[in-house]
Order: sequence, then structure tokens, then C-alpha cells
Amino acid sequence: MIRFALFGAGRIGKMHADNIAAHPNAELLYVYDLYQPSATETAAKHQAQVAESVEQALNDDQVNAVLIATSTDTHVDLLIKAAKAGKAILCEKPIDLDTDRVNRCWEEIKDCDVPIQIGFNRRFDPSHNEVKQAVRAGDIGELEQLIITSRDPGLAPLEYLKVSGGIFRDMLIHDFDIARFILGEEPVELHVIGSALIDPAVEEIGDIDSAMVLLKTASGKLVHINASRRASYGYDQRIEAFGSAGMVQSNNQTATSVSRYTEQSTAVKGPLLNFFIDRYGAAYDLQLGAFIDAVSAGEPVSPSFEDGHRAQQLADAAQQALDTGEVVRLQW
Amino acid sequence: MIRFALFGAGRIGKMHADNIAAHPNAELLYVYDLYQPSATETAAKHQAQVAESVEQALNDDQVNAVLIATSTDTHVDLLIKAAKAGKAILCEKPIDLDTDRVNRCWEEIKDCDVPIQIGFNRRFDPSHNEVKQAVRAGDIGELEQLIITSRDPGLAPLEYLKVSGGIFRDMLIHDFDIARFILGEEPVELHVIGSALIDPAVEEIGDIDSAMVLLKTASGKLVHINASRRASYGYDQRIEAFGSAGMVQSNNQTATSVSRYTEQSTAVKGPLLNFFIDRYGAAYDLQLGAFIDAVSAGEPVSPSFEDGHRAQQLADAAQQALDTGEVVRLQW
Amino acid sequence: MIRFALFGAGRIGKMHADNIAAHPNAELLYVYDLYQPSATETAAKHQAQVAESVEQALNDDQVNAVLIATSTDTHVDLLIKAAKAGKAILCEKPIDLDTDRVNRCWEEIKDCDVPIQIGFNRRFDPSHNEVKQAVRAGDIGELEQLIITSRDPGLAPLEYLKVSGGIFRDMLIHDFDIARFILGEEPVELHVIGSALIDPAVEEIGDIDSAMVLLKTASGKLVHINASRRASYGYDQRIEAFGSAGMVQSNNQTATSVSRYTEQSTAVKGPLLNFFIDRYGAAYDLQLGAFIDAVSAGEPVSPSFEDGHRAQQLADAAQQALDTGEVVRLQW
Amino acid sequence: MIRFALFGAGRIGKMHADNIAAHPNAELLYVYDLYQPSATETAAKHQAQVAESVEQALNDDQVNAVLIATSTDTHVDLLIKAAKAGKAILCEKPIDLDTDRVNRCWEEIKDCDVPIQIGFNRRFDPSHNEVKQAVRAGDIGELEQLIITSRDPGLAPLEYLKVSGGIFRDMLIHDFDIARFILGEEPVELHVIGSALIDPAVEEIGDIDSAMVLLKTASGKLVHINASRRASYGYDQRIEAFGSAGMVQSNNQTATSVSRYTEQSTAVKGPLLNFFIDRYGAAYDLQLGAFIDAVSAGEPVSPSFEDGHRAQQLADAAQQALDTGEVVRLQW
Repeated sequence: MIRFALFGAGRIGKMHADNIAAHPNAELLYVYDLYQPSATETAAKHQAQVAESVEQALNDDQVNAVLIATSTDTHVDLLIKAAKAGKAILCEKPIDLDTDRVNRCWEEIKDCDVPIQIGFNRRFDPSHNEVKQAVRAGDIGELEQLIITSRDPGLAPLEYLKVSGGIFRDMLIHDFDIARFILGEEPVELHVIGSALIDPAVEEIGDIDSAMVLLKTASGKLVHINASRRASYGYDQRIEAFGSAGMVQSNNQTATSVSRYTEQSTAVKGPLLNFFIDRYGAAYDLQLGAFIDAVSAGEPVSPSFEDGHRAQQLADAAQQALDTGEVVRLQW
Repeated sequence: MIRFALFGAGRIGKMHADNIAAHPNAELLYVYDLYQPSATETAAKHQAQVAESVEQALNDDQVNAVLIATSTDTHVDLLIKAAKAGKAILCEKPIDLDTDRVNRCWEEIKDCDVPIQIGFNRRFDPSHNEVKQAVRAGDIGELEQLIITSRDPGLAPLEYLKVSGGIFRDMLIHDFDIARFILGEEPVELHVIGSALIDPAVEEIGDIDSAMVLLKTASGKLVHINASRRASYGYDQRIEAFGSAGMVQSNNQTATSVSRYTEQSTAVKGPLLNFFIDRYGAAYDLQLGAFIDAVSAGEPVSPSFEDGHRAQQLADAAQQALDTGEVVRLQW
Repeated sequence: MIRFALFGAGRIGKMHADNIAAHPNAELLYVYDLYQPSATETAAKHQAQVAESVEQALNDDQVNAVLIATSTDTHVDLLIKAAKAGKAILCEKPIDLDTDRVNRCWEEIKDCDVPIQIGFNRRFDPSHNEVKQAVRAGDIGELEQLIITSRDPGLAPLEYLKVSGGIFRDMLIHDFDIARFILGEEPVELHVIGSALIDPAVEEIGDIDSAMVLLKTASGKLVHINASRRASYGYDQRIEAFGSAGMVQSNNQTATSVSRYTEQSTAVKGPLLNFFIDRYGAAYDLQLGAFIDAVSAGEPVSPSFEDGHRAQQLADAAQQALDTGEVVRLQW
Repeated sequence: MIRFALFGAGRIGKMHADNIAAHPNAELLYVYDLYQPSATETAAKHQAQVAESVEQALNDDQVNAVLIATSTDTHVDLLIKAAKAGKAILCEKPIDLDTDRVNRCWEEIKDCDVPIQIGFNRRFDPSHNEVKQAVRAGDIGELEQLIITSRDPGLAPLEYLKVSGGIFRDMLIHDFDIARFILGEEPVELHVIGSALIDPAVEEIGDIDSAMVLLKTASGKLVHINASRRASYGYDQRIEAFGSAGMVQSNNQTATSVSRYTEQSTAVKGPLLNFFIDRYGAAYDLQLGAFIDAVSAGEPVSPSFEDGHRAQQLADAAQQALDTGEVVRLQW
């Protein structure tokens, strides 16, 4: 039985609490949130205890795992404390917006020998994952090209964007991870173009809202990522993998399977599943299950801290490419 | 808070138990099943009590609702007992295979004034329901024709078929209910053709495994139902409603949204969602939610006992049409 | 080289003229139409001769084939004349609205030993034909059920409907032919329901505009046809064949392959291909090619006069079923 | 009436001959091809004359238009001759593989004042064109991003590739033109990654077979092109335009509209339309019609010589980006 302390009871934290509660091999013991009412509500719902402090939860020997879903700037501190307390850790992405801090964090915890899984939930999305499995199984022959479409339904508030670390570290980090996941190989060359097309205020805070990326691996595989902070037609999340023997797509999803035919138009399906908790609900659940299974079995968790680190390096490189307007070459 | 006694802890019963446990306004107090281990397992999972007898549960004043998911031949007896005990009832379809028994049941309970909802869960399927709402809202103008496709993935065991009441009372009763639900009007003419094409043993037990039905309403609306006990390609559940101003379809659903393109074939999606607990999982949950909401608010539940009764009369008429080879005219 | 006289230069006749002119092994020698300007225009376009009379064309030994695309009431007379003149014949459906006249026609021409092909062009539609080939090849195992959807885009003028012979002889005759074509077996039982839902004037002239048919074959195969004189969303032409090992569908077609995604709706494809000359353009062309190939090679043409005859008998039976409200049993 | 001399009677030339012959306002007077049998066959098919020489056709005053479908290296010479002879010109792309020669060609003919249309047929594809019209009409709001997928079904022979000018000048030139067509604006920044993944022999001749391009316009619009010399699953030709108010896609096309459902797989549609004469057949025809209409009406033809020139400059820039591994900035 994996007994969790949950740090962070915001929207994502609450969803994690539900998933833990519903899992047959997991139990929620503590909920901690700086904002007490959230912690209280979440703890009450699942007969858990409100932790007075992070330490209270970490000091309880019954707790053998920690789920970190607090704001990004607290991740490193909590990672270090939890690792030193010997707990298995499932930490929301990104580890930190600053790669130097990520590196220092690693220095501090690398000897702790606890499982640390980073919350790249999209790897667990059944459709995206089927693309990965099809590529791995050789169903499309040798992988040659990969296209990732990643468009949020609507522009986040400027207040959020200002502290988000920029579109690459905040949003495309997921896509860099998916690219690495499917490629099974590191990119060595990176190109970026980007603009603030949705709202000029985005440019004023030094960020962009529309981005296109190219990646090339050492073996010559080609990757394209296109991203936007706003897709008026809904949350657009697709992958296409092209190989020597075929192509496989992970397409968008709709809530219902209804088509309407009228004089004016044909086949209007329902709207796309809206945003990450709907679209990736199963992925969050499967991610938690994979963590629980691996920790229970004493097997390595995945994606690892190193995976989190590398996706971040790609995000940093993309930011650099945007800032300099030049190609970035990567060494690993 | 609606506090349930669950009668029947087979596959469907277990699913109902999960749904009750997950519902914020419901609680599972008792589980009863002739087969004790099922009752014990289900009760333990949700911290409920195993009822020694039906009466124990019904005598507990804390229980204000009963969910009947036992074998069909016990429904009438449990309905009568629960109604006389003043409990709100959600009863799996069909009420009984014998319409005479259904009538006698009604005579016994009609004065009990308890909410009785029959488990025609497909009315609550989000896609099927969207067809109903589109028709009701006039989105396709005046409804003219309706086609229901209803094909099970595989032939049930002969032992089950022998006591099933026949394809119309066992399987198409759902489709007769959906037809009535969308039509908002009673059929007055019924035609049937049918065969045992899948397994000759089905004919030997006096049943068919493949059926096509036509229904005509008093206002001239036309309905077709096609059904098979076996669709090798998966559970095929579709509705098409044709109106003066358009058409609306509820199409099949797949578990993932992956397409594969190869030299030999294009766009192979994943398999269809398999069978009722997968395909209609949301429907079962929404059905329970509607029951809980209505009972909590003191509003009438739907589909009602009378809806169950009428679907059964259509199933009886279909059986008669098959047996006689003639058109059946219906009066209501 | 097959050298044609074309009788009838209306909309369909003009299309046939274009197809003949474009075919490498065919030539258009004569065009005849009661309405001289149509004949003149069509003949001029293809450097053919306007025939002063049917006889002029039939007496020309260079002419070895006749394409009959005149009004239905003239078909029998032209069939007899052309057959007696020893010409190969491609005749638009139906042979005649009156089955007695069809029978008498056959008596007169049965010894003429000329190829006579009836214009059931839908057999040649590449998608419908692929269904036939899949069934024949056993791709779906043993055929069990068949559903044909046949909906015209808009109600024809009442003047036309009055002389059309009724919905079964005018419109569903195509679907009866497709049913026989795919079944490879004759129906022995026929059910009909129908209504005038689109326009009450249709009822006043003794016809219906909405129809549903059931057919059952001797071996127990089940067929459903649904038809409407008006589908507001376009010309709806689909086939589904269900077998022991799978299902195959011939779906609708659109002029372009464009999808539009907006905030209000997702995946609006273009409108359905409108009406028969667009939707079945390729079929008309392939039908002519099959006729030319067979006649050139001295092989039997198909669909034959007998096929035309049998589809008509099904249409007659359907009309009888509608008129009497009873099941019709057929013997062949 | 536009009376054509056709230069080049290879596969493409023959298709142009058919289209000219079928057009009501066009006539084919001469066919010229170095390989006499092709010229003879094509001329015979359409009752045209075999031109002994280019000059013979150009000196005939009856000829008022020239269609150039010869090998690329002869285009410039024929363009100059035809322009000086005062003929309207429809010339297959590219003008020449060498932009210097294109420039010199323009110097020679710029004062001739004859209509010159370059054969970027994809602009006329009904589905691609619908994307352009949707963008122009503001149906997706302000255009922000554009993705073009352009994958040939199979690697062309090495002999062809050696003289093709490279993947950018030979293949992606179409996509650069489509990008400019839909953008309505020039790209100012260009990135390329590419590899020889299909066949190492491609690398040996100094070319690539797999390419990804990024383009950015002055106003900040972002474009991605992905291309491959081989898509094992068929000719993959798609466009996606993303705007502030929606998205519009031009999707692939299949020859039939058949879906197959089996135990193993669901919804296998037919194969993609194979290669350009099938996929873009309508586009070639509409391109010719647009040329004939514009020339007949004395209106400017489009795409113009300048359009051909600019697509070529983008292809040159892409080649330079590939060769240097650096970003290319463009000025116009």
C-alpha cells in the first residue's frame, strides 16, 4: 500500500487526491496547502489529515510517498526535503524554471536513492502512448519524422504568464518531453520561430504566444512542434509519427460521438475535449498508477528526474534560439 | 443524502456500487446477494454492511432507496417488497419477462407512491441523449424517420439465451425504449423479420439471433431497428434521426483516437468500445445521478415503471409478429 | 468500335452523349429527341447527326448500339424496335412502370438475341461496387444483413410525381436492384411502412414520400431500405453490409476534403455531393464502359432485362404491401 | 477561342492535351515533342497537327497560346520564343532550376506584354483553394500559423533526382508557392533541417529526401512545411491554417468512400489518391480553365512569372539554409 502525503491542493492537487483515493493500492494520509481551506476541503473529502506543516507529514513513517503539486517555485525545496526523508516522489512538472536550481537540486538529492517521477502525464495518455508503442514495435518501420501539435484553448492571464518562465519552459516542455519519449534519442539541433500574435501584451512582458520549433537528432530524424497559447476551436493536442513503413496519428477527442447534418453544413461533431483535466484525465490517472506500481514493485519510475532535466534543457535552448534568432546546437 | 441498499452484486451490481460510492449525495449502506462472497466483497470495498436478508435492509429506516440488480425473475418480488417498505427504487430492466406478472406487480404497488425508475440506461448516454435533445429542440425540424442499430459483440451462452425471454424481451427492449424516448409518441404498427444466422442452436431453442423491426406511429413517423447477437467488429450502437431540416447521428466510440496509415490500408482506428459497461459506463453513472437528483428533489423519476411496461409490450408484440409472420397493430 | 444512336437528349441523355464521345471504343452517330433543339445541340457538340426519326438511325447499318434515355413510357416501344433491328441496347431504368407491358415486351424480343442492359448505374458506383466485391470475396464472412439508405435531396415537382409510378417504381427500384445485386439471392418476404410526411399533396395524389422496407430471403438474410424524397442535408446514399466476420460500408461523398473548426462547431465538412449526376457520375461512365466492353467482346451484358424485370416485381410487391398494409410473400 | 500549341507530350503533356480538347473555349492545333511518336499519338487523338518544329507552331497566326510541358531545361528558351511570338503562355513549373537564368529570361521577355502563367496547379485544387478562400474571407479570423504536409508516395529514380535541382527546387517549390498564396505576404526568415533517411544514395548525390522548413513573415506569421520523397501509405497532401477565430484543414482524399470493420481493425478506408495526376487532376483542369478565361477576357493571369520567380528564390534560400546549417534572412 502506497500512503501519500499530498503537497498542494489546488485544481491539480484535488484531482490527484481523487485519483489516489480511488486507487486500490493507495491511500491519502495528509494534505498540505498554504491556503488552509483547500487543504481542509480536500482532506475532509477523502478522510485524510490536514498537515500542519510539510515536516509533520514527512516525519510520519506511515507516509511512504509524496505527491508535489504546489506552485513551481516550491518544487525544489519540497523535492529535497522529501528525498532526504526517504519518500518516493511524484512531482508535477517543471522541476524548476531555472536549470541552475535544477542542477543544484540534483546535487543535493542524487544520493538519496528514492524514486522520483516527474509529472509528464502526456506520456500516459492512451492515444499518445499508442503512438509511442507503435513506433517502438516497428509498426511504421523506422521512425523518420515527428509532428507535435500543442495548442491551448485560451490565453492564460497575464499575471500567470509573467511568472510562467515563458512559453517554452511552461508549455512546450511537455512537447519536448513527448518528442524525447517517442524519439528515444536526443535532439542535437534546434530552430525556433515565434511571435506574439494573440495579444500584444504578451510581447510587452517579453514572451511570445505562438511558436514553431524544429529539432534534428544525431541520426537525422526530424521533429516539428507547433504551439499556440490560444486555439479558438478548443484544446488541440495531436501527434503524427512518420516512418519508413507507415504513419500513425494520435488525433483530437470529443466528448460525444454525435454528427449533425444540415443544409448549411455536414458532420458537425461536438467540441474538442476542453483543456488538460478533461483531455488528459485518463493520463493523470494512469501516471499515478504507473508510479504506484513501480514504487510497490521496487522498479525504477519513469519519466525520471533526468527526463525532467533534459526537457528543461530543450526549453532553455528554445528560449535561447528565440532570443538570438540563431540555430542552437546541443550536446548531451 | 440517498442511502442505498443494493440487491444483487454481480457484474452490474458491482458497477452500481462503485457509482453509488463515488456520488457525493449517496451512500451505500447494505449489499445483498444470494451468493454471499459477492456481497461480502462489494460491501467491504465500500464500507457497507452485508444484509443477511432483503428484509433486514428494507427494515432499516436509514435506507431510503433500493437498487435492484438481481436476476430478472426476482425483480417483481423485490419491487413489491421495496415499494411496500416505502423505498425509492431504481430497478434494472426488464421488470419481468412476463407482461402479466408486470401487470400484477403494478396492481400491487400502484398505491405505494414511491419513485420507481427502470434502468434504461441508454437514455442517459451522452451521445444518444444529445440526439434526443436535438430532436426535442427542433434542430432537425420535424422528426420523420429514426434508425437504431443495436448489435452485441458476441453471442451470449445458450444457457443464458434459453432463459433470456428471447431477443426482443432481452435485447431489443432497450431499443424499443430508445425509440419511444426519441419519438415522444407510441408506435401503432409493428413488422418483424428475423433469423438464426449466427448459430443454428439458437433456432433449436426457439429464438433468433438476427432481427429487423419496423415501427410506424399514428402520425406517420417511421422507425427501423436492426439487431444482431454478434457483431464480429465490436459493440455497434448507433442512432440516426432524420427530420425535415437535417439529420443527427449518434455514432460508435473508440477507446483511443489513433489512426494508422500503411501501404495496405488507411485510417485504421482502434476497436469499438466493447460491450455495455465500457460503452455505457457514463450512462450508468448519469442514470444513477438522475435518480438521486429526482428523489432528493421530490421530483418524478424517469424512465418510469410505465415506460418499462410499454417497452415490454413492444417486445411482446415483436415476438408475436415473429411467431405469426404477420403485421401487429398496437393500441395503447 | 461501338457506334451509338442516342434516343433522348435531356439531362441524362446529354451526359450519356458526353460519355460516349469520350470513350475510346465508342462513337456517337445519331441523336434523336422529340424536342429538336436538344437533339441539335447534343449532335453538334459531338459531331453526330440529328436523326429525323428513330427508324433512320435504326436502319443505318453502321449503328450497332442504341442508348435509350427517353421518357419511361417510350422505353418498351424503342426496346422492341431496336431489338428487332438487331442493335445492342443500353436502356435507362425502369423498363416500364407497368409490369404487364414489361412482360409483353419480353415476349416480343426474347428471340432477338441482342444484348440488353438496363441502366442500374449504381451497381457501377466504385464504392457501392466495392461493397459487392467485398461480400462476394467473403471479406465479411457470410452476409447476414444489409441496410440501404436512399434519400433524394429534394422533393420532385408534383407533376413529375403524378406520372412517376409511385416512390417504389420510380425511386426504390434502384435500391431493390442493389439489394438483389449484393444479396445474390431473391427476397421472398417483403414488409413496407410509408407516409407522406414532406408534403400532404403527395398523399393527395395517392403516393408517399417516406418509406421503409424489410426484405427476407429464403436463406434468412435480412434487408432494410430506408428512403425519403427529401434529405435537407443533401443526397444521402449509403450501404452497410453485415457479415459473420465483419462489416463494410459505402459512405457518402463530399466535393472537397475540407474541415473547419470554430468555437461553435468542429469538423464541418463540405456538403454532400448533390444528386445523381454528381454522385453517380463515375457510375454512369463505368456502366457505359461495361456495356461497350461486353458488347465488343460478345459477352453477356449485366444487369440484364431480367434484372430490370425482377427489380420491378419487388417495386410492385412493395406497392401492394403499402396498399394492403400486409406482408407480401414472393415466389420467383 | 484559345488555340493552343502544346510543347511536350509526355505524361503531363498528354493530360494537358486532354484538358484542352475537352474545354469548350479551347482547341489544340499543334503538338510538338522531340520524341516524335508521343507527338504523333497525342496529335492524332485530338485531331491536331504534329509540329515539325517549335517555330512552325509559333509562326502560325491561328495559334494564340502555348502550353509548355517539356523538360525543365528547355523552359526558358521556349518561354522567350513564345513570348517574342506574342503568344499567351502557360508554363509548367519550375521556370528553370537556375535563378540567374530565370532573371535573364525575365530581362528578355519583360517587354513582350504577353500573359505568362506558371503551372502551380495546386492553387487550383478545390480543397486547397477553399482554405485560401476561407483565410481571405476571414472565416478563421486573422491568419496566424500555416502547416503544409507534402509527401510523395515513392522515391523517384536516382537518375531523375540527380537532375532535379534538389528537393527544394523540384518538390517543395510547390509548397513555397502555396505558402505565399495563402499568406498573401512574403516570408523574411527561413530555417531548414533535412536528412537522407530513405536511401543513402540520395546523400551521395548531395541531396536529402526528408525536409522540414520554418518560415516567418514580417508581420510574424509562422509557417511549417514537412516533406518526404516517400510516404509508404500514399500521396500525403494536406494544409492546416490556424487563425484567431478558427482552423481550416484541407485533408487527404480517397478514391472511394468505403469503410471496413473487422475484428482486428475498424474503419479501414481505401488508399489515398495516388500521386499528382490523380490527386490534382481537377486542379490541372481548373488551372487551364483559369488561364483560358483570363486570356480570353484580357485579364491578368495568375500565378504569374513573378510568382514563379519568388517560389524559386525561397527554394534557393532553403538550399542555402541546408548547405550552411544557418538561418537565412530574406529581402524582397
